Amino acid sequence: MIYLDNAATTMKKPPQVAQAVVRAMNSMGNASRGAHREALTASRVVYDTRVKLAQLFNCRRPDHVVFTCNSTEALNIAIAGALDPGDHVVTTVLEHNSVLRPLYRHEAERGGALGFVRCDALGRPIYEDFEALITPRTRAIVCTHASNLTGNIVDLRRVSRIAKAHGLLLIVDASQTAGAVPIDMEELGVDVLCFTGHKGLMGPQGTGGLCIREGVELRPWKVGGSGVQSYSRTQPAEYPTRLEAGTLNSHGIAGLSAALDYIRETGLDRIAAGESSLMRRLYEGVRDIPGVTVYGDFTAAERTAIVALNLDGYDSAAVADELSERYDIAVRPGAHCAPLLHKALGTDLLGGAVRFSISCFNTEEEIDAAVRAVRELAEE
Amino acid sequence: MIYLDNAATTMKKPPQVAQAVVRAMNSMGNASRGAHREALTASRVVYDTRVKLAQLFNCRRPDHVVFTCNSTEALNIAIAGALDPGDHVVTTVLEHNSVLRPLYRHEAERGGALGFVRCDALGRPIYEDFEALITPRTRAIVCTHASNLTGNIVDLRRVSRIAKAHGLLLIVDASQTAGAVPIDMEELGVDVLCFTGHKGLMGPQGTGGLCIREGVELRPWKVGGSGVQSYSRTQPAEYPTRLEAGTLNSHGIAGLSAALDYIRETGLDRIAAGESSLMRRLYEGVRDIPGVTVYGDFTAAERTAIVALNLDGYDSAAVADELSERYDIAVRPGAHCAPLLHKALGTDLLGGAVRFSISCFNTEEEIDAAVRAVRELAEE
Repeated sequence: MIYLDNAATTMKKPPQVAQAVVRAMNSMGNASRGAHREALTASRVVYDTRVKLAQLFNCRRPDHVVFTCNSTEALNIAIAGALDPGDHVVTTVLEHNSVLRPLYRHEAERGGALGFVRCDALGRPIYEDFEALITPRTRAIVCTHASNLTGNIVDLRRVSRIAKAHGLLLIVDASQTAGAVPIDMEELGVDVLCFTGHKGLMGPQGTGGLCIREGVELRPWKVGGSGVQSYSRTQPAEYPTRLEAGTLNSHGIAGLSAALDYIRETGLDRIAAGESSLMRRLYEGVRDIPGVTVYGDFTAAERTAIVALNLDGYDSAAVADELSERYDIAVRPGAHCAPLLHKALGTDLLGGAVRFSISCFNTEEEIDAAVRAVRELAEE
Repeated sequence: MIYLDNAATTMKKPPQVAQAVVRAMNSMGNASRGAHREALTASRVVYDTRVKLAQLFNCRRPDHVVFTCNSTEALNIAIAGALDPGDHVVTTVLEHNSVLRPLYRHEAERGGALGFVRCDALGRPIYEDFEALITPRTRAIVCTHASNLTGNIVDLRRVSRIAKAHGLLLIVDASQTAGAVPIDMEELGVDVLCFTGHKGLMGPQGTGGLCIREGVELRPWKVGGSGVQSYSRTQPAEYPTRLEAGTLNSHGIAGLSAALDYIRETGLDRIAAGESSLMRRLYEGVRDIPGVTVYGDFTAAERTAIVALNLDGYDSAAVADELSERYDIAVRPGAHCAPLLHKALGTDLLGGAVRFSISCFNTEEEIDAAVRAVRELAEE
């Protein structure tokens, strides 16, 4: 089996990830609940993982690293927790439904307003739109770091300069970039970074979170048991407890911690370079096949390891089925929860697109097999 | 090490649970995302687990079993999703902060009102209060199935009769009872059952959910990617997707599924009887030790496997520390996120209580060691 659906979830993880989960399941109590050895072990692993994530993303405060069960929850927390009723938000047509639906809800239920940065024919944001869309009511820019459809990376430095000039919060969806490309929150000027653990970070499903810049106040999302300040009627005001209620997924977090060690030891630059090389090999292999249309900007120096394409006259789901059944290649067809970008590219009318997404555990042989399969399907 | 903090999280799990998690991590894609084998494997495991939970709790619709990352999230969803602004709710002083804080928020932010059922000296709810507290604005009763401090079980049949007579929703916190005592939603008349996976169900941390009776409408909580209906601006209306956004913790759910198999094969009655026997052995062993005060009702036929106590003149945290350091016994001191019950029992003034909580993997020898340790500490 050739797994090329890593933008949905990385399936091959470093072996130490599962080992760490098993160790955690056999040795951990409930983090922040009690002072016996097992509970303290859990607390320590959870805190160490905050530190590792803070280092990876250059978030100055490890206690401002908040765990969630996925990136979607992180984005819901950031959007609902930062915006007041009536706030206007600038966002882009590149966004995933994990950004769009919380924003639509803000619009529908809290009198919010939204402005959408358009994209060009290659799916790149039209950066001038960011500035042009800002109104006196604008509170935040909510923006993906990279499109989950095309792999195009958004120039966050440019976006954050605009955000800063207007006193806006910059909330970033790093679902596609965390663990895939270097992210420096300080350098990029990101206020809230939302990430998932099970994609580029190669941790278990059920992990993710937010890194919050010091001074950014997000209202609590779920509230409940905190293990501290139990006589208070409200969630504790301090991060991370402010945004974490109930038992954490310490077992998953232990796995994520091991994955972060792997990334640090291997080197994120090396991982990114390897994935990039495979992505370009795939792109070079398929771009000139007659009947194949590839989406996205491959002239950019930096992009994530995605190649999205369509075959003339073929529905994307049919291509994916052929790839799966005849070639044992796993890819993702359809809408990728990115409705506005598909509409902008016109691929909504073609049943979406076929997305190949690569991890550092893929090989050149697998990429070549994928190219051959696309060529054969295109020739039929 | 003698682990007697199973009401916080069960640490010893059936070995097949961790094995299932590892298998899942090595073979699963993203559930409901794509149609290749790995994604379908994840979808199947997730759906099978819904079916198993529906069977365990007698929830008639497996598609009304919704996964969350913990019981707290389930309770937040149920409470925020069921109540309209201004609704009055009847609840009890037995509740955990995972119920109390969402209700306090409803009161503070949405004009809600709350009535609290009191308890007697043994921590049993005063059932007459349920009826007496109902007002024309009452919409729901939110009630724990068992106190996480005393182990007392609430007579849900009696509560649900009152709820039904007044047309109220019955939302139940089964954090302490799921997997510990049999639960039949239909027979008990429960509308929404909130459970966690990592306690009595012996699954991994990061799992939990709600079982929703057909016809009960809960508004979406987090919204985002659903893998289906991607062009809709709102979360799909159908359960379970209505309440699930983003990537599920399929790895954890696979472990929970294995735990559910273990429970079914072993027999929940047998598990409950074994835990009950150990709980009574512990109670019998400590009840007459001079200086020991035990909380809760041990005359009831059914209770969870908890023994909470204090030693005269000893802070509960100090007792727990002694038990941990000198005897290697893990228990939970303090407030247990149950502030109102501690206040009702007067234990808030004693620094809480020392809670021993038992799982089916504990042994008589461990219980006897705990009794000896309590005796020695009481004699000092």
